[in-house]
Amino acid sequence: MMQYQDISSAWAEFARVSATLNAYYHAMNVLGTDAATAAPSDSAEGRGRTMEVLSGVVYDLIADPENHKLIAYLEQHRDELNQMQNRQVQLMRKQADQLSRIPQQEYVAYSVLLNDAEGIWRKAKNNNDFASFAPTLEKIVDFNRKFAGYYNPKLPAYDALLNEYEEGLTMQTLDAFFGELRSALVPLIHAVGQKEQIDDAFLKRSYPIEQQRKFSAYLMEVMGIDPARCTIAESEHPFTAGFNNHDVRITTHYYENDVANSMYSVIHEGGHALYELGVDDAYNFTGLQGGASMSIHESQSRFYENIVGRSLAFVEGIFPKMQELFPEQLKDVTAEQMYRAVNKAEPSLIRTEADELTYSMHVMVRYELEKQLISGSLQVKDLPQAWNRMYAEYLGVEVPDDSRGCLQDSHWAGGSIGYFPSYALGSAYGAQMKAFMEQDIGSVEALVAKGELHKVTEWLAQHIHRYGQLYQPGELFERTCGKFDAKYYTDYLTEKYTELYAL
Amino acid sequence: MMQYQDISSAWAEFARVSATLNAYYHAMNVLGTDAATAAPSDSAEGRGRTMEVLSGVVYDLIADPENHKLIAYLEQHRDELNQMQNRQVQLMRKQADQLSRIPQQEYVAYSVLLNDAEGIWRKAKNNNDFASFAPTLEKIVDFNRKFAGYYNPKLPAYDALLNEYEEGLTMQTLDAFFGELRSALVPLIHAVGQKEQIDDAFLKRSYPIEQQRKFSAYLMEVMGIDPARCTIAESEHPFTAGFNNHDVRITTHYYENDVANSMYSVIHEGGHALYELGVDDAYNFTGLQGGASMSIHESQSRFYENIVGRSLAFVEGIFPKMQELFPEQLKDVTAEQMYRAVNKAEPSLIRTEADELTYSMHVMVRYELEKQLISGSLQVKDLPQAWNRMYAEYLGVEVPDDSRGCLQDSHWAGGSIGYFPSYALGSAYGAQMKAFMEQDIGSVEALVAKGELHKVTEWLAQHIHRYGQLYQPGELFERTCGKFDAKYYTDYLTEKYTELYAL
Repeated sequence: MMQYQDISSAWAEFARVSATLNAYYHAMNVLGTDAATAAPSDSAEGRGRTMEVLSGVVYDLIADPENHKLIAYLEQHRDELNQMQNRQVQLMRKQADQLSRIPQQEYVAYSVLLNDAEGIWRKAKNNNDFASFAPTLEKIVDFNRKFAGYYNPKLPAYDALLNEYEEGLTMQTLDAFFGELRSALVPLIHAVGQKEQIDDAFLKRSYPIEQQRKFSAYLMEVMGIDPARCTIAESEHPFTAGFNNHDVRITTHYYENDVANSMYSVIHEGGHALYELGVDDAYNFTGLQGGASMSIHESQSRFYENIVGRSLAFVEGIFPKMQELFPEQLKDVTAEQMYRAVNKAEPSLIRTEADELTYSMHVMVRYELEKQLISGSLQVKDLPQAWNRMYAEYLGVEVPDDSRGCLQDSHWAGGSIGYFPSYALGSAYGAQMKAFMEQDIGSVEALVAKGELHKVTEWLAQHIHRYGQLYQPGELFERTCGKFDAKYYTDYLTEKYTELYAL
Repeated sequence: MMQYQDISSAWAEFARVSATLNAYYHAMNVLGTDAATAAPSDSAEGRGRTMEVLSGVVYDLIADPENHKLIAYLEQHRDELNQMQNRQVQLMRKQADQLSRIPQQEYVAYSVLLNDAEGIWRKAKNNNDFASFAPTLEKIVDFNRKFAGYYNPKLPAYDALLNEYEEGLTMQTLDAFFGELRSALVPLIHAVGQKEQIDDAFLKRSYPIEQQRKFSAYLMEVMGIDPARCTIAESEHPFTAGFNNHDVRITTHYYENDVANSMYSVIHEGGHALYELGVDDAYNFTGLQGGASMSIHESQSRFYENIVGRSLAFVEGIFPKMQELFPEQLKDVTAEQMYRAVNKAEPSLIRTEADELTYSMHVMVRYELEKQLISGSLQVKDLPQAWNRMYAEYLGVEVPDDSRGCLQDSHWAGGSIGYFPSYALGSAYGAQMKAFMEQDIGSVEALVAKGELHKVTEWLAQHIHRYGQLYQPGELFERTCGKFDAKYYTDYLTEKYTELYAL
């Protein structure tokens, strides 16, 4: 057994364990990124074996009784550690407690279940066959309910799950948040529905993928993303992977007949990338690199995608380059028409394709259903009917099949229950950040119009990015933006869509 | 300390260690492949740290005294193990002996050095700045000289390095081999130089890279490479990475004004890929997957590149597709002209672009220089001058700058000293395999002409590929082709070039 003579030898050991864990996470994340972007389709078995070995080592390192003793020793000597060190210990404590509370047998059974679930879900989605996925989803829900008790037995189960993605987030907060969104946005969506619809047919012309690739590189340049630290690849679903602030990857998916799809994927993932790239060098390889939480991460991605990327100033700024890359496709289109087309609001079926106005309603459906599934008031077998009812109620659309209904997202098959609210919360965080940012540096739209987007990024880097995981997400947000208030978000949307649709 | 009650518990432990090592090698190889194909240029530090941790674990696993005891136990019970198991033990013994002779600090320091070296070399090559790479290369040479003593202290240092890539290969063998090549090929090269030169100007027209990408996919299809098990990416220097027989990657590098460059890279790397893909399933994850040695590997890649890919039948077979992809560029070109152009023999600067006839002379330069660097009779700082002198002597060309001289290849930056001879030896192996194959299935050229390239691949799979690392390379070769004789190779080249140039 290791004995710690003093705080400095204990800290040295802790730093060694952290750096080791970081190496394993890095390797596993590269394997995962490679799997989604470059690996042959039949390569899963070998990767599965490797992941099993590496994740087994991670489990052992964290659950090691020596590690628990080390954490306890450091907690007792809290006063001798600086803020950064204490935060590292706190995050390690959270991981160690959770892992050691889950019986290893259940942990392994759950890993095996999730390993199969992705394929079962994909098949069910392709065949529009919810029944074939239901037994798996039922088990996933049961595991999550049980794990919630391990994570934090004092909290209601769904709160414990929320806490996994956003420390401190509760149903009470979210009920109030979504309540406000509902009362502000449902009438707005209705009013927009009464107006003449925007023409966006030109977005569906043929845009050669090779040209779209050049467009992506241009967008990343406009966003100030350093290509020596962040590259782009292609995958089925766009995502961002950040290993440290010198190694970030974004992906997109090109559709020849939908130029806006990849365009806004690149800007969205680019927002995630700027966050990862903006974390202070000091946090690299410590466990504090990367973003504070999913919601704060989404606040950045959706800030760039919507508040910046869907602003008139931004669209006007990039439009000459778009016309240069797509001269035939855009010869009869103006920047103003492009701006209106990429902001067209219309209730729809698919979350990832939803416009800025109706997006949160998609998230709300998932939030309500997750709560009910975890509390047990909704059975998995009744999920499709409940889903379809809510889409009719909140979005006014009829769901034609489960593939475009409750089977559309991969999150639940991946075991992520409690993750969806981050998307809506992140959008609202972003709107509040915009308000506080503008008190400091003036109108975002005006800065973008002057070609000074970098000032926006600098403000975000200064107030959010650089801190990595030093603060709890709520604390990080409140330090800069005060108490969270959904009104910033509803006001922003109301103003934008009132003007756009001349309501 | 672990006690082995019986052979089956000992074997179970050995299999567990092998599978664990395989997971680490897999992860490190994916990190390396990602570094060369997708990673941002400034990402080396984080990867270096991760490689340091993972290679440290590999070192510990192999050098572990328990592992040595386990190997010794299994060696004592050799008769109770099958051929495959004994070979696994033999290869583990080789690694364990070598590693336990290398002090861990040096092993890790070398891994870290190599991680940085790639970026330094790339920059030096781009800037034609040998001086900026020299200190790194010096360290790499020093490490290799020292490691040679660890690998096998009884051998001359360079023989010990050769042995790493080709068990049993010696300078004595290579001096004789290159001597034969020199006496057969130098007069042939001279004779070709007297004849009117083939016109290959059309190869240097503008071939859009997007079309070249489609051409690569077509070539892989023609070669019968399963896209579900092997993908292609782009890197500075083409290479193949095989993780198991379901997960192989090849890379190429496109040059807009040189269509043959990527074309023959794809066929060459495709030959490596077919080898990796053709290994028996039973060897996956055991340490016996992949090729028997670098020379056997090169025998496959250069067999496809030259004996198949530069045959008239092959060029005629793919020419219609080439004209379809590049109609403007090839409208005034015939298949016969294409065949002659891709076989044009002319002393040149760049090994990877060299023709089949002069190729071995490029290798010979590197072989001679490596011998001198390792023996210490040549200093790294004097490498450019020595390089340029040999190019003048063996190839009769003047080297205009180090980018096209001693900085052209990535091998030394990757730590590979003793690897280059494999290329020439592999070419010669391939020519001998051709002769033996034709005794079984008739003329390769005739099979290719009939669209039956798969019969060639099947023969190679049957006699070479499927065995993975079950046999020592020399043994594998001799089982099928008898004793190695360079005459097969010199005869093949003499015949081919005598006809091509009407000598």
